[in-house]
Amino acid sequence: MSMGKPMARYAAAKRVGDFVFMSGVVAVDPATRRAVSSFEELPEAAQAPLRGLGYATGQMSVDVFEAPIVAQSWFVLERIRQIAAEHGGTMDDVVKLVQYFTHLPHYAFFNRVRGLFYLGEPPVSTVVEVNRFLPGDGVLVEVEATMYLPRQG
Amino acid sequence: MSMGKPMARYAAAKRVGDFVFMSGVVAVDPATRRAVSSFEELPEAAQAPLRGLGYATGQMSVDVFEAPIVAQSWFVLERIRQIAAEHGGTMDDVVKLVQYFTHLPHYAFFNRVRGLFYLGEPPVSTVVEVNRFLPGDGVLVEVEATMYLPRQG
Amino acid sequence: MSMGKPMARYAAAKRVGDFVFMSGVVAVDPATRRAVSSFEELPEAAQAPLRGLGYATGQMSVDVFEAPIVAQSWFVLERIRQIAAEHGGTMDDVVKLVQYFTHLPHYAFFNRVRGLFYLGEPPVSTVVEVNRFLPGDGVLVEVEATMYLPRQG
Amino acid sequence: MSMGKPMARYAAAKRVGDFVFMSGVVAVDPATRRAVSSFEELPEAAQAPLRGLGYATGQMSVDVFEAPIVAQSWFVLERIRQIAAEHGGTMDDVVKLVQYFTHLPHYAFFNRVRGLFYLGEPPVSTVVEVNRFLPGDGVLVEVEATMYLPRQG
Amino acid sequence: MSMGKPMARYAAAKRVGDFVFMSGVVAVDPATRRAVSSFEELPEAAQAPLRGLGYATGQMSVDVFEAPIVAQSWFVLERIRQIAAEHGGTMDDVVKLVQYFTHLPHYAFFNRVRGLFYLGEPPVSTVVEVNRFLPGDGVLVEVEATMYLPRQG
Amino acid sequence: MSMGKPMARYAAAKRVGDFVFMSGVVAVDPATRRAVSSFEELPEAAQAPLRGLGYATGQMSVDVFEAPIVAQSWFVLERIRQIAAEHGGTMDDVVKLVQYFTHLPHYAFFNRVRGLFYLGEPPVSTVVEVNRFLPGDGVLVEVEATMYLPRQG
Amino acid sequence: MSMGKPMARYAAAKRVGDFVFMSGVVAVDPATRRAVSSFEELPEAAQAPLRGLGYATGQMSVDVFEAPIVAQSWFVLERIRQIAAEHGGTMDDVVKLVQYFTHLPHYAFFNRVRGLFYLGEPPVSTVVEVNRFLPGDGVLVEVEATMYLPRQG
Amino acid sequence: MSMGKPMARYAAAKRVGDFVFMSGVVAVDPATRRAVSSFEELPEAAQAPLRGLGYATGQMSVDVFEAPIVAQSWFVLERIRQIAAEHGGTMDDVVKLVQYFTHLPHYAFFNRVRGLFYLGEPPVSTVVEVNRFLPGDGVLVEVEATMYLPRQG
Amino acid sequence: MSMGKPMARYAAAKRVGDFVFMSGVVAVDPATRRAVSSFEELPEAAQAPLRGLGYATGQMSVDVFEAPIVAQSWFVLERIRQIAAEHGGTMDDVVKLVQYFTHLPHYAFFNRVRGLFYLGEPPVSTVVEVNRFLPGDGVLVEVEATMYLPRQG
Amino acid sequence: MSMGKPMARYAAAKRVGDFVFMSGVVAVDPATRRAVSSFEELPEAAQAPLRGLGYATGQMSVDVFEAPIVAQSWFVLERIRQIAAEHGGTMDDVVKLVQYFTHLPHYAFFNRVRGLFYLGEPPVSTVVEVNRFLPGDGVLVEVEATMYLPRQG
Amino acid sequence: MSMGKPMARYAAAKRVGDFVFMSGVVAVDPATRRAVSSFEELPEAAQAPLRGLGYATGQMSVDVFEAPIVAQSWFVLERIRQIAAEHGGTMDDVVKLVQYFTHLPHYAFFNRVRGLFYLGEPPVSTVVEVNRFLPGDGVLVEVEATMYLPRQG
Amino acid sequence: MSMGKPMARYAAAKRVGDFVFMSGVVAVDPATRRAVSSFEELPEAAQAPLRGLGYATGQMSVDVFEAPIVAQSWFVLERIRQIAAEHGGTMDDVVKLVQYFTHLPHYAFFNRVRGLFYLGEPPVSTVVEVNRFLPGDGVLVEVEATMYLPRQG
Repeated sequence: MSMGKPMARYAAAKRVGDFVFMSGVVAVDPATRRAVSSFEELPEAAQAPLRGLGYATGQMSVDVFEAPIVAQSWFVLERIRQIAAEHGGTMDDVVKLVQYFTHLPHYAFFNRVRGLFYLGEPPVSTVVEVNRFLPGDGVLVEVEATMYLPRQG
Repeated sequence: MSMGKPMARYAAAKRVGDFVFMSGVVAVDPATRRAVSSFEELPEAAQAPLRGLGYATGQMSVDVFEAPIVAQSWFVLERIRQIAAEHGGTMDDVVKLVQYFTHLPHYAFFNRVRGLFYLGEPPVSTVVEVNRFLPGDGVLVEVEATMYLPRQG
Repeated sequence: MSMGKPMARYAAAKRVGDFVFMSGVVAVDPATRRAVSSFEELPEAAQAPLRGLGYATGQMSVDVFEAPIVAQSWFVLERIRQIAAEHGGTMDDVVKLVQYFTHLPHYAFFNRVRGLFYLGEPPVSTVVEVNRFLPGDGVLVEVEATMYLPRQG
Repeated sequence: MSMGKPMARYAAAKRVGDFVFMSGVVAVDPATRRAVSSFEELPEAAQAPLRGLGYATGQMSVDVFEAPIVAQSWFVLERIRQIAAEHGGTMDDVVKLVQYFTHLPHYAFFNRVRGLFYLGEPPVSTVVEVNRFLPGDGVLVEVEATMYLPRQG
Repeated sequence: MSMGKPMARYAAAKRVGDFVFMSGVVAVDPATRRAVSSFEELPEAAQAPLRGLGYATGQMSVDVFEAPIVAQSWFVLERIRQIAAEHGGTMDDVVKLVQYFTHLPHYAFFNRVRGLFYLGEPPVSTVVEVNRFLPGDGVLVEVEATMYLPRQG
Repeated sequence: MSMGKPMARYAAAKRVGDFVFMSGVVAVDPATRRAVSSFEELPEAAQAPLRGLGYATGQMSVDVFEAPIVAQSWFVLERIRQIAAEHGGTMDDVVKLVQYFTHLPHYAFFNRVRGLFYLGEPPVSTVVEVNRFLPGDGVLVEVEATMYLPRQG
Repeated sequence: MSMGKPMARYAAAKRVGDFVFMSGVVAVDPATRRAVSSFEELPEAAQAPLRGLGYATGQMSVDVFEAPIVAQSWFVLERIRQIAAEHGGTMDDVVKLVQYFTHLPHYAFFNRVRGLFYLGEPPVSTVVEVNRFLPGDGVLVEVEATMYLPRQG
Repeated sequence: MSMGKPMARYAAAKRVGDFVFMSGVVAVDPATRRAVSSFEELPEAAQAPLRGLGYATGQMSVDVFEAPIVAQSWFVLERIRQIAAEHGGTMDDVVKLVQYFTHLPHYAFFNRVRGLFYLGEPPVSTVVEVNRFLPGDGVLVEVEATMYLPRQG
Repeated sequence: MSMGKPMARYAAAKRVGDFVFMSGVVAVDPATRRAVSSFEELPEAAQAPLRGLGYATGQMSVDVFEAPIVAQSWFVLERIRQIAAEHGGTMDDVVKLVQYFTHLPHYAFFNRVRGLFYLGEPPVSTVVEVNRFLPGDGVLVEVEATMYLPRQG
Repeated sequence: MSMGKPMARYAAAKRVGDFVFMSGVVAVDPATRRAVSSFEELPEAAQAPLRGLGYATGQMSVDVFEAPIVAQSWFVLERIRQIAAEHGGTMDDVVKLVQYFTHLPHYAFFNRVRGLFYLGEPPVSTVVEVNRFLPGDGVLVEVEATMYLPRQG
Repeated sequence: MSMGKPMARYAAAKRVGDFVFMSGVVAVDPATRRAVSSFEELPEAAQAPLRGLGYATGQMSVDVFEAPIVAQSWFVLERIRQIAAEHGGTMDDVVKLVQYFTHLPHYAFFNRVRGLFYLGEPPVSTVVEVNRFLPGDGVLVEVEATMYLPRQG
Repeated sequence: MSMGKPMARYAAAKRVGDFVFMSGVVAVDPATRRAVSSFEELPEAAQAPLRGLGYATGQMSVDVFEAPIVAQSWFVLERIRQIAAEHGGTMDDVVKLVQYFTHLPHYAFFNRVRGLFYLGEPPVSTVVEVNRFLPGDGVLVEVEATMYLPRQG
């Protein structure tokens, strides 16, 4: 699930002083170059916790409307967790999230999934509904994360 | 006017190093769970300064279009001032604002109200028009503030 | 090309600790108070590099659709470069960009122009499509930059 | 929660032969004459099972988008259960449902709530998205039920 | 007013067991093949009762907006009454109506006209607003009726 | 072409007394979970009769607009025929159809295909144009069928 | 039912020579500052005549669409009658009406109500459909009246 | 071309003091009850002057877009001239016109036709674009006229 | 600021008896033939009073949305004052205003500017939102004034 | 079916060298000046071949959507055949067609009808969907034909 | 009025055999690079003939809607006449025109202007309404001309 | 890349006299029957020249918006080149192009690609924006070409 092909030329994250700034993350499958839209595109480890939230029911008419936002939410937050880990941190160090949606009722779904990643104290959070994300129309959520991880002296 | 019931599970603000990051603030009345839309929903202390700006005229056909954005602007900035105070700072320490509107001509109203909170040097400012905010359609402005308040050593 | 008349009362940039936060920058010609829309509004120095990218062709039917976004991209990034310089830094110190567009396919044009300003390591980058910017409808892109420039002790 | 004031002049249900036909049911609060839109409008007995499904979270930004359809789904199905009971039957005798929605993604929410009413064999089901219901715009779902309850000879 | 030319190949009604199912009925004038739109297209016998309801005023600016739905309501219910009669029943045997409208405020007009056909106990009733009916845009209401008329043994 | 994976939890059909009620049927390919959109997705047996109607021409620009509705019409009616057969009946026992379309001019295509399934007396028929069906936007027609098949005693 | 709080600063009416010009009148409840939308907001004396016209039926699904325009029509014309009386005239002296609607089919309702106020010779009348009135979206009709009442010499 | 059947119950005009107020006039053919839409619906006397203005060309593709507004303009102004004559005045006594259009570019056509009726000093004139007129969508212009004709003493 | 070139052939105002009727006035700059859109287009004398109301701030992002309606309001009322003066009257003699807007929230701005012209008793006032004015899309307000100025005998 | 009244002043066709260029042809009935919309408007000779294609079924709900495009297709191609004949050629000499549609799915219908006119080698063909044709909205297809017919030397 | 700066790289016209094909012509002022929109942009020689058609009235409210299409029609046809002349021909040799409009009612204006250029036999003509032309939104008409001018030999 | 399956029954090109007329060409992949949308669908030989123009960057967010129009432009022009070759000509003999786009800003991209095919004198060119092409919505450009290739005698 690593981002094989670049979206564009930019840094996924950058440490400056005690902060690690991350670029906005979207859920694009590097193989197909398309936005994630189903539970099948997530790794096995994601299935059980999402079912625990009542999603991934296996009923087509239920999943068809929920799968894209639920799966993208998991994908994006897992990607942020990975970037945090690459810089030596955990989700608890990711202290601030700016969360953009194309359809604000999706926030309820995202919010439940985010609970899987933040067991303790939740982050500082901004939520706005905008029009569109790169690389195109199927992307439903973009998250920009800020990590605070003081250099050890 | 304290935010009795939570909008969602997130931190209103968080200190990391010399910074206090604040979550995006919107003007939702905790009692009614609806967006602020009239001058009557503001505390007495807000009335005089807003009348000084020419708002809150008492003429229904004038106030009906101006009240929602003017009252929300005051509510949001006052809430930011309170959070700053809870962390030991003032508006002058709130150095950066990202201001989202659903209707950009509202900026002119917000701008006058902001002048009541920043008597001295104005903050760094970004303004964009987006589609919608939590928790719904009546919310006209959301502001994300960053405070710089060096820990005293 | 200095911003003669103020857009509004706010600070163009502010140093706090090791950071310089910049206000969102748009491409508005201070003389006409209108958004930049043609290559002729850019200084001579911009012409050759843009022609090197294949733009500014001199063919009216080609330039008419490309000029506004290409010229605004150059204008905005050049303005950020100037602000960075005023605070003693270069584009390489501008480590993070939040880039708002009103029409996301404009990103491809902006991306090529940005390559003229970042020869080395690219910045952390967030891109979202929103509705509108100050001071009005002709503005196609707004960029909010963050510079990291540790104070020298 | 009985339907105090009539919606219009029609029979809520009618037995003909072995069948009980029911009029289309919508979730209108007879006191306010408005569509149900929050969990607070439901009786206490409804709260726990809905929380068991993950709804009625108490987080305003989550509930705001989910409450109307979840609460209406419960209200409508409970009303059908009552009508069935008034004619001597149970939900298991309600063998066929035609379910109209104004926004088809609401089906996923309705489907979970329906599971609270049909523990055994599910009914025959038709689902279509239409424009609007009586008595107005806030109504999100209408259900027409058919009960089969052979007269005992 | 008999339906001279077929709308399409289907049965207007069919007895099965103790029930007579009717096809959805719309108000199309068989001569012009167009939807009924004025009081003049109704037989003489319809005029007095409709005037008794306050319709068919003879004032052009009043009738122009009311005539299409009022006249179609009468036409459709009269057609159902005829089909019921052809099978040996009356409107009181037509126990269930599914009523589709293209513009829901038309229900108030239909409801008054229906009162002319159901003097006693009203039928079971479902009302939904949909987009369009055969054979085209001028049709404002379609009604599907079910008659219960036990075979006499 | 059996419906391998469930659309949702509901009964495809149910016998009550002398009737078999069927759930609304749509043309979704169980393998791809997407609406049928081409003639290739139909079994070999369907090709000749559809070509006999003038469809499935093999000319891309002709088939591209006709294939989805023609193929879905065949798929849906064939599925109803199968359910009837599973309960011991034939199409002639399916006496009543409620046919929903998202685009009413599709009725002409459906009508020709239905002629392949009803060689004798046609069924009772209701037709309305609605907005959308489960599981999503590609579905063009949904049919709810009622079968009358007296128990033999 | 007097207009307690001012809509804005203007004169409700003014005598000049033999004429009394009236400002445009809308149906806004001074207590709630909202447009009249139900029969309950009218005084008791209005109920019987409106029921005599067939309105105020007590059936929710009928009244919901008719109440706003019928009640506003009565409110506006009664207000004009009051102003006329305050200047010593009657409705028969109000010789000219300019009637603006936001939805022209509302004219039929208004026209019936106006018949309650003009028993004798009707006034000169202009009717146009416009977009919106002060103080906002719920207002459906505005009437500008001219009274001719020669000064007695 | 007299207005045989009433549009609604109102006075076409009324003298009060030295003024004659006229109701708003639209171009509706009393026979068909539809808006005038072609030159053929005008009397012979209208043809030559309109051809003198370059209209009524006899070329279908030219007339099709111009005929409705040109013919309605003539019809409305001629009707005003008749009402003026019935009260003993001429067009020169009709001193003020309020002219409503549904499509403002129609003003240019109306303006030329008005020149046929006002050879001398033109009237006081107000022009606004609104949405719709009675009795329906084909009406493109409505004119409200005021005549000043002092009573002779 | 005199209206050099005619808008069209009509009289700006006309005295009949004790009344002066004025044509509808819009704010069109006779030199550019375009609607007034900035404070710079107003004479020097207008600047101070408008700044006294809080407008004409010199901040581009504030003025850009307010300037067109504020400047047009001043232009239109000043033009009415001039016409009144040409006929020997003052604003206090202009007893009735019909005010058309294309965007009703503009009323609040107009209302403040009108206060500069009516220091004493306000006029009779009608306000409606319509679609468009001559000569085109930039015009935001049109005012039709009536002056009462008895001839001295 | 001759084109009695001119659409506008232009040549229906013109020979230049070995080519005959034809003006774009649309299906307008010269008697009614309206676009052809039913099979009844075609001559008797057209009925059988169109029925052979499965059109002109006599079922109102089928024909209502198909008749306009099928009948116009026949009308337009027959008119081109006539023009060709007038210049001494046949459809086989009409070697190139540019076919404009207002609704591209109509191509399938046109294509079948064209098969009646081109039994042998088909022409060179361009197809695009545009907005509208002269003389108005009911016209669904326009065809511009080029004939090659070498002068005989 | 020569086309100083190129629209794009293409040939304005090309002779092949006895034909001269011309590129599509639009009315763009080479100096401003904008579409022609007023009579002032035309040379003196154009004014009298256009006034002879009743255009260029000098009344702002009349000209504002007519000037763009009338002036562009003249500009485009004059440009075609020039190209014809450069190749040794006249308008009579330009035997075929394909005329694209963005708003089909503009055809009536174009048609009158074209009469100034074709005194004798009119050309073969195709007219369609499309969306847009190069170089942008102000362009209302594009004409593609074909000239037949046999080489003399 | 040959067009395996026919779009419809028509001739790809036809020689008449000294001309070869070509049918309108679109970029549809014969294997998938879908419009070309990525650089990967083009043959290897196309990659280098397109990269030389700055396209096919390998950055997903850049290519996603540019690939469809750039790749289709190459596909269409290459197909025209092939047809020309099949008739013994080259691109220089293709003297006239009518180029239809669904989104006119795509012209700039097409124009650069066309430069790869016309090294010498450019063709005669017409460009219009229309709505849609066969066989459906993904097609962005259609080109109709005319070749002049005198028969050798």
